[in-house]
Amino acid sequence: MTFSAVDVITTKRDGGRLSDDQIDWVIGAYTAGDVAHEQMAALAMAVLLNGMDPDEIARWTQAMIDSGEVLALPDVGRPLVDKHSTGGVGDKITLPLAPLVAACGAAVPQLSGRGLGHTGGTLDKLESIPGWRASLSTEEIAAQLADIGAVICATTPTLAPADRKLYALRDVTGTVESIPLIASSIMSKKIAEGTGGLVLDVKVGSGAFMKSEDRARELAETMVRIGAAHGLATTALLTDMSVPLGRAVGNALEVAESVEVLRGGGPADVVELTVALAREMLALAGITDVDPAEVLASGAAYPVWERMIAAQGGDPSAPLPVASHVEPVVADRSGVLTRLDALAVGVAAWRLGAGRARKEDAVQAAAGVRLLVEPGEPVEAGQPLLELHTDTPGAVAGARAALADGVVVGDEPVARPTLLKDTIRP
Amino acid sequence: MTFSAVDVITTKRDGGRLSDDQIDWVIGAYTAGDVAHEQMAALAMAVLLNGMDPDEIARWTQAMIDSGEVLALPDVGRPLVDKHSTGGVGDKITLPLAPLVAACGAAVPQLSGRGLGHTGGTLDKLESIPGWRASLSTEEIAAQLADIGAVICATTPTLAPADRKLYALRDVTGTVESIPLIASSIMSKKIAEGTGGLVLDVKVGSGAFMKSEDRARELAETMVRIGAAHGLATTALLTDMSVPLGRAVGNALEVAESVEVLRGGGPADVVELTVALAREMLALAGITDVDPAEVLASGAAYPVWERMIAAQGGDPSAPLPVASHVEPVVADRSGVLTRLDALAVGVAAWRLGAGRARKEDAVQAAAGVRLLVEPGEPVEAGQPLLELHTDTPGAVAGARAALADGVVVGDEPVARPTLLKDTIRP
Repeated sequence: MTFSAVDVITTKRDGGRLSDDQIDWVIGAYTAGDVAHEQMAALAMAVLLNGMDPDEIARWTQAMIDSGEVLALPDVGRPLVDKHSTGGVGDKITLPLAPLVAACGAAVPQLSGRGLGHTGGTLDKLESIPGWRASLSTEEIAAQLADIGAVICATTPTLAPADRKLYALRDVTGTVESIPLIASSIMSKKIAEGTGGLVLDVKVGSGAFMKSEDRARELAETMVRIGAAHGLATTALLTDMSVPLGRAVGNALEVAESVEVLRGGGPADVVELTVALAREMLALAGITDVDPAEVLASGAAYPVWERMIAAQGGDPSAPLPVASHVEPVVADRSGVLTRLDALAVGVAAWRLGAGRARKEDAVQAAAGVRLLVEPGEPVEAGQPLLELHTDTPGAVAGARAALADGVVVGDEPVARPTLLKDTIRP
Repeated sequence: MTFSAVDVITTKRDGGRLSDDQIDWVIGAYTAGDVAHEQMAALAMAVLLNGMDPDEIARWTQAMIDSGEVLALPDVGRPLVDKHSTGGVGDKITLPLAPLVAACGAAVPQLSGRGLGHTGGTLDKLESIPGWRASLSTEEIAAQLADIGAVICATTPTLAPADRKLYALRDVTGTVESIPLIASSIMSKKIAEGTGGLVLDVKVGSGAFMKSEDRARELAETMVRIGAAHGLATTALLTDMSVPLGRAVGNALEVAESVEVLRGGGPADVVELTVALAREMLALAGITDVDPAEVLASGAAYPVWERMIAAQGGDPSAPLPVASHVEPVVADRSGVLTRLDALAVGVAAWRLGAGRARKEDAVQAAAGVRLLVEPGEPVEAGQPLLELHTDTPGAVAGARAALADGVVVGDEPVARPTLLKDTIRP
């Protein structure tokens, strides 16, 4: 069926509901280039301001899936279950989580992207491991899932190409912040990837895309509903992102911290969130006789990590890159660390070289921020609070400026915010 | 000053006010190609849905004027005053009006466009006169204004180029129907043209762009306010467009009816509106000692018409084109003509060949509709109600279909709607 792009746009502009046929047509025609960028931009703005109802969102998601291929994975002998995070500062959880869930008996096909802006990308982190490569064929993914149970690799251009095109458009037209468009973007890729279950980590707070709990909850509920409409068992955790996760922010720095966790150590918050997500993933996979907390503490997930990295050409025992320049940020007075803002730390790490401003930028493997003190701990004047790591010392001034209001020593003791805020099920 | 297009878009998306600098920058950068079509499309949709306040609209208008040149007319020895109609079916008023106002002592620099859709364009109508040409240089316009007092010609591409570019974009992105964007589009061109006074004919009803009186009034008030903000004396009439104006719809057909009016005859509604607009224009020009009704009835405006047409290469005494195929639409029963819908008649004339669907289409000079009966008049079964004129008889079926619900014979007498609904002054 053929429609006029203007009719589709004005339907949504005037607060109407898009028909299934209109949605199928506009996504297909945009992917094919028959609907122009400016037309899709106007439609995206109308969707952002006037919304879509659950049925429209489910159909929009399906149309994006139908714009490309669905990953045809053969039976790998284990239940498939995946996880997606909306992104946060120091969020390296995928790195310990995939081997942990594999060690517990499920298979994790984690197709990831690179980072843009102040939150890092999983592939950027893993690429700090010498030799590791992100691109795998479908056959390699299947073989690695059957053999090891965990794959973290680059998504393929044939999955949901409409989403790739639409996301790039939204990025330059001020139409990123639409819950229907965010939810359908995430879910179309995950459904096209062919997973059997999905756990979402929806982050809330200054360092997250969603600053308010209400918006984060709405996004989580919208994605869980899309999963249900597509027969994909989906659970969402609402988790805090007002302070960074763990004590390392940056690519190689986060790999090192992930290895600590996989060996049974590491920061308590990273362990807590990794275990909570693993528990939900295993429940969706129907594996209830294994306690992921015990498996992680025992170090039994670490050999899975080693095999997963080695299978993609990486040397898990090779030394990680180290920054040529490291300098501390010190306390300007004695007292208590009352504020360690996730966004400020994320922007600082980004400016130090850990992230990219444009898709075509390279990232520094060793750049980032190491956190030496947790919120609520007492500090002395002159005591180092953070370490700035970079290969470009000229970037330090900008990183310090980003931290100016984000790292505060005061007098009143503060409690760390609750990490696990809520669980949202179908 | 340089801004990010995304920041400008999100300001309006989130219901904020655009700063003067943001408006100047975004219009200038869009005209220069530094803001992409998809970005302006998203902004236009945000403006449509979230509006602009009067100061924003005035600045937006100024930025569009500043995107090009302002027509530098020398003193032509008479006060300049112009008129703009938002467009209607059978709206040939500019044709008798410009010579009439010139005959009364003012000068009318009427820079016009071609029609698109169901309302005809003034240039299309005049081009049905053998030899007449629409394009004049600034020098020719000035000379003709000084000599004859009236020019109807094509607008030049150097006036408000941002408007031309933005209008083409709005046309394909469902963002035409925004009062701030409509008002600034019209007023930027009229202000750039350098007129000393402006009378707006804002039409209301099925055949008009504005279907409701509330919306038409808001548009009129917005334009009068823009005029005031730019020091241009502006008056708006709200006039009916639920039935066609006069008895002729089409290019040559409307020229012939205009000549009747200029010779002192013609349909009462065309005479009434022509005189009302002339009276307002003369008031703005400071000419209060001439009665345009008397001048029109005396036929004294006709020689001005002849000179105006001849000055642009036209032969005012040449026979007008006649359609090769004419057939009637007859009454299917006896009774009273209770409905003669402007939109239906406009679409019928368009389908017969009088209008164009795309900018690049040609129009037929002789095509159109002649109205034989007025609403409220008694009719006999089989009596011709309208005549369809075309050079492409295959178009007749489509024209009849357009008229099916628009021309109705019933039993109850109806009153013709009031033509002049209101006058809006600063």
